[in-house]
Amino acid sequence: MSGLDSSGYDGVVLKKLQQADARVGDAIRVVTDSRDVTGILMPRAQIGSDPEHIVIKLDSGYNMGIRIDKNTSVRQTKRAKRRRHHDTIEVQHKKGLPTVSILSTGGTIASKVDYQTGAVNPALSAQDLHDAVPELGERANIRAKIIMSRLSENIYPSDWSKITRAVAKEIRAGVDGVVVAHGTDTLGFTAAALSFSLQNLPIPVALVGSQRSSDRPSSDAALNLTGAIDLVGNADVAEVMVVMHGQTDDKAILAHRGTRVRKCHSSRRDAFRSINSSPLYQIDPPQIIELSPPLFHRDNERKLRVKPRFEEKVALVKTYPGIQASFIENIISTGHKGLILEGSGLGHTPNALYSAIQNAIDEGLVVGMTSQCIWGRVNMNVYRSGVELLEMGVIPLQDTLAETALVKLMWLLANERSSEKVKELMTLSHVGEIEMRTEMEEYQPPQEVI
Amino acid sequence: MSGLDSSGYDGVVLKKLQQADARVGDAIRVVTDSRDVTGILMPRAQIGSDPEHIVIKLDSGYNMGIRIDKNTSVRQTKRAKRRRHHDTIEVQHKKGLPTVSILSTGGTIASKVDYQTGAVNPALSAQDLHDAVPELGERANIRAKIIMSRLSENIYPSDWSKITRAVAKEIRAGVDGVVVAHGTDTLGFTAAALSFSLQNLPIPVALVGSQRSSDRPSSDAALNLTGAIDLVGNADVAEVMVVMHGQTDDKAILAHRGTRVRKCHSSRRDAFRSINSSPLYQIDPPQIIELSPPLFHRDNERKLRVKPRFEEKVALVKTYPGIQASFIENIISTGHKGLILEGSGLGHTPNALYSAIQNAIDEGLVVGMTSQCIWGRVNMNVYRSGVELLEMGVIPLQDTLAETALVKLMWLLANERSSEKVKELMTLSHVGEIEMRTEMEEYQPPQEVI
Repeated sequence: MSGLDSSGYDGVVLKKLQQADARVGDAIRVVTDSRDVTGILMPRAQIGSDPEHIVIKLDSGYNMGIRIDKNTSVRQTKRAKRRRHHDTIEVQHKKGLPTVSILSTGGTIASKVDYQTGAVNPALSAQDLHDAVPELGERANIRAKIIMSRLSENIYPSDWSKITRAVAKEIRAGVDGVVVAHGTDTLGFTAAALSFSLQNLPIPVALVGSQRSSDRPSSDAALNLTGAIDLVGNADVAEVMVVMHGQTDDKAILAHRGTRVRKCHSSRRDAFRSINSSPLYQIDPPQIIELSPPLFHRDNERKLRVKPRFEEKVALVKTYPGIQASFIENIISTGHKGLILEGSGLGHTPNALYSAIQNAIDEGLVVGMTSQCIWGRVNMNVYRSGVELLEMGVIPLQDTLAETALVKLMWLLANERSSEKVKELMTLSHVGEIEMRTEMEEYQPPQEVI
Repeated sequence: MSGLDSSGYDGVVLKKLQQADARVGDAIRVVTDSRDVTGILMPRAQIGSDPEHIVIKLDSGYNMGIRIDKNTSVRQTKRAKRRRHHDTIEVQHKKGLPTVSILSTGGTIASKVDYQTGAVNPALSAQDLHDAVPELGERANIRAKIIMSRLSENIYPSDWSKITRAVAKEIRAGVDGVVVAHGTDTLGFTAAALSFSLQNLPIPVALVGSQRSSDRPSSDAALNLTGAIDLVGNADVAEVMVVMHGQTDDKAILAHRGTRVRKCHSSRRDAFRSINSSPLYQIDPPQIIELSPPLFHRDNERKLRVKPRFEEKVALVKTYPGIQASFIENIISTGHKGLILEGSGLGHTPNALYSAIQNAIDEGLVVGMTSQCIWGRVNMNVYRSGVELLEMGVIPLQDTLAETALVKLMWLLANERSSEKVKELMTLSHVGEIEMRTEMEEYQPPQEVI
């Protein structure tokens, strides 16, 4: 492992910074043979990986990298204000406006503050929100709370439980809607998790992220956040959704069903897509246009049931030519309770895996099949390969997304006693994760420029 | 494992069939209390999984399932003609037409014959081709050869070597182009494999599949095959490509670069998509329209170099919340030489995997990073997570598809002695697998119907 501390610096640079008592976010003055500059110390990991540079943000807003050697002088000139975790702040309260809770878990949507105070401190305090989107107070009475501060690649199933409980607490406090700010990497997984763990929702819950941090001119943070607040404050829906840009311009914000959405581009603002289904809403603040009927309507009388537990010992395996049966054997021997296969085409695997899959089922694992095609559905009755897997007891999961299938199986295995019941429930749709109608109309795949 | 023989039948049904000496493809007469029907015996796995039914194809073309009990009479009335493997047949030879070799490996494109002779016998003899597309003889002098008969989920890296050698043999025989008929499940992997293993190609090679078998009215087999033959017979290109429907109608056939193509729908005819790049050609037989310039032009003087070997001990692992480090440890302990991570977003993994990834690199595995987003490219300099993985020695693979990265690493590890050289070559583009220009224009993601 690397010797990084939380600032991302190490070696001689870290030593200089420690001597100067300078932490990320502090103003520092750096004097070398040829330069004398002052600016905010940035975390190194955010910018690049040259181990002998300090990166500071100048007053102009630009970042500068400065090579440090043992003769460089580094002084801390102004201590950054540190924010505490778990602050709850209500911005204001106006009559006639809906009340919306915003729970922050971290990620790029919170990265304005990352730039100022470093990767360790959370963001999205009431003040940050106000700075980013001054008109938010005109749209809703906001309750803002920081519940964790993580890039979403480090959100684990146990965190889904924490987020579930935090959302439930807000719902029980009587708000009109809840927004969860979250990194985009695993936003789809968390959306699926909340879709299952928050049963019998009375109000809408929207997860929102951003692909560009809010201090960049091209940021999508403000519009995504505004759209999410408008949606959960006003729309007649009670589902878990993901609210993100639908195009690269700042026009169409889309709300996707939480069990149906996937990050399909690593960097574009319109990275999130509804798969095998239509988005639920287009939001052009303050307009909200319904694109597809919701499964559940807002009903404040409906009694929330919270089922926050997830079984972590469930594996997702994407198959490929040459995949070794030892992977599956390892999954069995390490105590996994379930396995979601991301097979090829209509739901096939190389026959080299058959005996290991049979062993997994004999050992009591629940094994489900999805397709690595992403679009379309599995149909294991068409070819011999599929039929043989069905006969072993592999469960065909229709058009469930592989990621959603994984989360659903983690959830069912933590909440149902009998594995027969789990198997049965995997084939039934609870919150829109399976659609029985033909998928043909809903495939609007990548159109190339011809 | 199930007790299936190659016909897919078992139990009392199989016994009846054996007593009647009836094999799939034979005409049989079945007499029950209420029926007396004659038709072609179909393999069960193709249709459904009810163990007490025989399925026969009637003269009308429809399939019928008949429940069998011990009183049912089954007689074989006509033996199907069995074709031998490895037949090479030249259909005809006309002056002025290009000569094209068609090598069949199996899959749905060969399933007309599956219906007649069962899952074990191969297809695409010269006669079958002629039956399917009578006008083929007007477009090219065809050399047809069956090299294996597999559903593509059972094509392994060792089969890529066989297909490579078979294609090389045709090229050296002086044909103008080669078409490889292949199942669609792993067509993209095989296309990537041939892109690397056939170095310095003098002529084009097109892989072609079909999503619907050729005896269905909606079949795409004939048009895909015609398009592929036209392309490799005539176009001024010398690359490995995949030729499939670009839309659900029978208008646009597209040729995709072999390292850039992915099956994105489980059942639609337009399932294959170029990712992060444009298709190379649109084929509207006999018209061929260039959409993007080829990397290599046809040149009969160019000397083919065949590098058919692939290292099977390379793993592909898609990350997800809760993934266990023991997966990576198992990959190390089972003697793998390489690992392609399909990480989240710009190329991240949960930090729970870091120490196992470090171990893999310390043990000498080559570890590369791709993105499970599918579209876009990895950029591991933006966030701490990415920087830490880079510092461990994880290789960022730009916009290489995960599937192509896996095949490339299998190929490099079998053909290069030094792992430093392998690491360097993984970051360089050989046959269009990495494109350095911005990917933004090339993302034309799923557009929802709004």
